[in-house]
Amino acid sequence: MLIRAATADDWPAIWSFLSGIVAAGETFTWDRDTGRERAREMWLLSPPGHTVVAVDADGTVTGSAKMNPNHMGGASHISSASFMVDPGRSGRGVGRALGEYALEWARAQGYRAMQFNAVVETNTRAVALWTSLGFEVMATLPEGFEHPTRGFVGLHIMYRLL
Amino acid sequence: MLIRAATADDWPAIWSFLSGIVAAGETFTWDRDTGRERAREMWLLSPPGHTVVAVDADGTVTGSAKMNPNHMGGASHISSASFMVDPGRSGRGVGRALGEYALEWARAQGYRAMQFNAVVETNTRAVALWTSLGFEVMATLPEGFEHPTRGFVGLHIMYRLL
Repeated sequence: MLIRAATADDWPAIWSFLSGIVAAGETFTWDRDTGRERAREMWLLSPPGHTVVAVDADGTVTGSAKMNPNHMGGASHISSASFMVDPGRSGRGVGRALGEYALEWARAQGYRAMQFNAVVETNTRAVALWTSLGFEVMATLPEGFEHPTRGFVGLHIMYRLL
Repeated sequence: MLIRAATADDWPAIWSFLSGIVAAGETFTWDRDTGRERAREMWLLSPPGHTVVAVDADGTVTGSAKMNPNHMGGASHISSASFMVDPGRSGRGVGRALGEYALEWARAQGYRAMQFNAVVETNTRAVALWTSLGFEVMATLPEGFEHPTRGFVGLHIMYRLL
């Protein structure tokens, strides 16, 4: 698996799975009706942000991640990141590889920590993955997320020093 | 004390104390060199955000607050708010009045919770005020804030249901 910087040409491939994940509204805190162009603006970041794709041996985009500062000023050493993996390609280590990449990128950029602001507590697979990569659930905001079928559930804030 | 919507005409008065608070870098996670125009863009919000000023009996602006959504999608029911009080007018209940206003505004707008993303732990006065208004320290991010004289200190995330 190769992880490389995303380009505008990757957007159709990213949108092919990102659109369904956003529309499902179960794991991601974007408006479920976010359109293609608005999503592109929010996902393909310019510096100081950074967006990458994970690519299979045959060149297929299997996942994507974006990394960015999470605060300004005295907290500007805290980064954040978001991840999307094609559900049809899950269970092959794409999410883990993207997570490891994001941590390395943040260290190389001089960040001292990474924070995830909104990890839905019912997304147990993601919580387990980030925990295995050294993140800790610092807090769970009660009723922080309205899940389309489970109603109000908790929203985790996860964090790790780099 | 009157609390009313801020207008463009209020900006010189707001900037007169906001500029010093931002430049001090002890309590606010904005870049310390944020300029006047950039600060105005970030402080005077358009809907769905809302910015107010607290005004003394003689018409002097003594403080200001901005309120806004803190997340999107399934977490869009969580609001946030930020507060600035003229240090020369502190201890007169301006911060408390602005905090109470923000909570009422958020309830009226249909939000279900309010979250503060970055309360510097050494800002004990603010922590005590928000605690007295029903907020709870949900987490303290270790080394989350670089204080200009105390070095790396914790950054609180505070939250309350409405």
